[in-house]
Amino acid sequence: MIFIDACKRKQTPYTPIWMMRQAGRYLEEYKEVRKEAGSFLELCHNSTLAAKVTLQPIDILDVDAAIIFSDILVVPLEMGMPLEFLAGEGPKFSSRISNEVDIKNLQIGIYKNLTYVYDTLSKVRHELSSQKALIGFCGSAWTLATYMIEGEGSKTYTRSKKMLYKEPKLLHMLLQKITDELKGYLEMQIKAGADAVMVFDSWAGALEKEAYFEFSWKYMKEIASHLKKKFPEVPVILFPKGIVGYLDCIDGDFDVFGVDWGSPMQMAKHYLGERYVLQGNLEPSRLYDRESMEKGVDEIIAVMGKKEGHIFNLGHGMLPDLPRENAIALVQMVREKTKR
Amino acid sequence: MIFIDACKRKQTPYTPIWMMRQAGRYLEEYKEVRKEAGSFLELCHNSTLAAKVTLQPIDILDVDAAIIFSDILVVPLEMGMPLEFLAGEGPKFSSRISNEVDIKNLQIGIYKNLTYVYDTLSKVRHELSSQKALIGFCGSAWTLATYMIEGEGSKTYTRSKKMLYKEPKLLHMLLQKITDELKGYLEMQIKAGADAVMVFDSWAGALEKEAYFEFSWKYMKEIASHLKKKFPEVPVILFPKGIVGYLDCIDGDFDVFGVDWGSPMQMAKHYLGERYVLQGNLEPSRLYDRESMEKGVDEIIAVMGKKEGHIFNLGHGMLPDLPRENAIALVQMVREKTKR
Repeated sequence: MIFIDACKRKQTPYTPIWMMRQAGRYLEEYKEVRKEAGSFLELCHNSTLAAKVTLQPIDILDVDAAIIFSDILVVPLEMGMPLEFLAGEGPKFSSRISNEVDIKNLQIGIYKNLTYVYDTLSKVRHELSSQKALIGFCGSAWTLATYMIEGEGSKTYTRSKKMLYKEPKLLHMLLQKITDELKGYLEMQIKAGADAVMVFDSWAGALEKEAYFEFSWKYMKEIASHLKKKFPEVPVILFPKGIVGYLDCIDGDFDVFGVDWGSPMQMAKHYLGERYVLQGNLEPSRLYDRESMEKGVDEIIAVMGKKEGHIFNLGHGMLPDLPRENAIALVQMVREKTKR
Repeated sequence: MIFIDACKRKQTPYTPIWMMRQAGRYLEEYKEVRKEAGSFLELCHNSTLAAKVTLQPIDILDVDAAIIFSDILVVPLEMGMPLEFLAGEGPKFSSRISNEVDIKNLQIGIYKNLTYVYDTLSKVRHELSSQKALIGFCGSAWTLATYMIEGEGSKTYTRSKKMLYKEPKLLHMLLQKITDELKGYLEMQIKAGADAVMVFDSWAGALEKEAYFEFSWKYMKEIASHLKKKFPEVPVILFPKGIVGYLDCIDGDFDVFGVDWGSPMQMAKHYLGERYVLQGNLEPSRLYDRESMEKGVDEIIAVMGKKEGHIFNLGHGMLPDLPRENAIALVQMVREKTKR
């Protein structure tokens, strides 16, 4: 598999490409299946339909990897926090974590219950070409904790930060409990067919440097090194969004570092390029315009070269109103421009 | 004035301090005046009450500078875009800029109409101790343009980015028109009594590097150099939020660079500390807890030293639920810890 070879810095015929949120609303085919499922969460729970949308971008875009269709919040959901996805508002939990009792009441060992995710993975792996990789994923402990503490998405993370600065031990207790589930969850995903796994730390940028390393990166590394010990052959990708200012302190046992579009590839390469394969980082909005898109692609390739050490991706997820024809063109463009 | 001396890298008896959004809802005194005014916008329009809240943090916190109470959106308002501030939702314009006709319809020379801001400045300067500085401000052209194009605050800046990548000339036309008003606006603020001026580029981080320099920083620099030519003695402070990844390319004729909390002071110092005085950058959430606050202060002082080249500030605005006693303690703490 070209994607997996690239994760291991082996020679590949071209730089592989996939796109974050490549199964999404910019595809009519996705919207149809989502409608059939009823709701976003029902789509996550239905392994047949989830497998279907996971495979759509492989057929439509011809990307080098599929990423399992699911949501990071299925973990807190199974830990005992019911939630809804409200149209236009995002996720909303029916409760919030605010003290030690709340944390103790969270269920453990729930990674065993996430069978719908594992079923989706086996179905996809079964149907997917052996040339294409399948990526499993989870959210980081910190990112999940913020949702659990705020009860919903947040702009200011007030409750989470209050806990962090006033009751750091309480927050660590929660983060450790989530981390233990995530280890089991990614293990089971690998066993079910994931060829690589990725940890999304979407709210990494909510933390200043010192707090980031203590309350988030620590647990990212713990998950990564756990997996690398058990499955040394399976690439681990870490993607902390919004921490370009902290790249000089990134370390740990993992394979690929996801670079967001706010982190210039040149800077990421400078700090991390020798130790990690870099994945990224086209600004998704460039896909609104073909010429802007090509200019962005050329800049990234100029920095990363047509060689090992790079996996092409967007620097953030696909947007619902981006033209699919540009997404298709992007894959072909990267493949042609990076041919060895 | 200690603050102005520090902006010019002159010796001062201690590192001066003020706080972004120091006149705000964390103060009961502010909430009372705001209630009296009726609404946020009416408070901006009422120079007597605006002067009152501008002066509150001087009395309560004993900071070294007052910043005029106003809002960056008074500029688009006067250009012909009525707006409301909805409780809990933020600003909402009754129209949106989407094409050349919309841009041509925007009124010019409106900086002359912002008399309520100038009145507030003269009233404050009249009442303020001669030891304390008064800061005037505006939003950057890019930040104002995003509000005008989106019609409200945004998470994704979809319309603005679509215009940027598909119709760059149209966006430049809008940005230039706003910039011309901002030059006049800051000039008039200086004439009305502002001892220094600051440009807030709050949505700087919405742009990738190349786009940032073309569509925002270019205009920030244009405003700064215009002012430095006319008023060489008046310090100009630029504050682009969220661009730590681009610090290596920052240049221009201005005095002070505002550092947000996502940009480690060490990194800002490395790239900019020799050319600019740095202002920042305590994570405001540290004020939830006295011990965390002190730790953060110590880290910043350890990097910046007890010497010229630094103005202490938060790395973002004060939050409504931060305890005022910690804000008061912060000012005293910084003053004591940086005594020469």
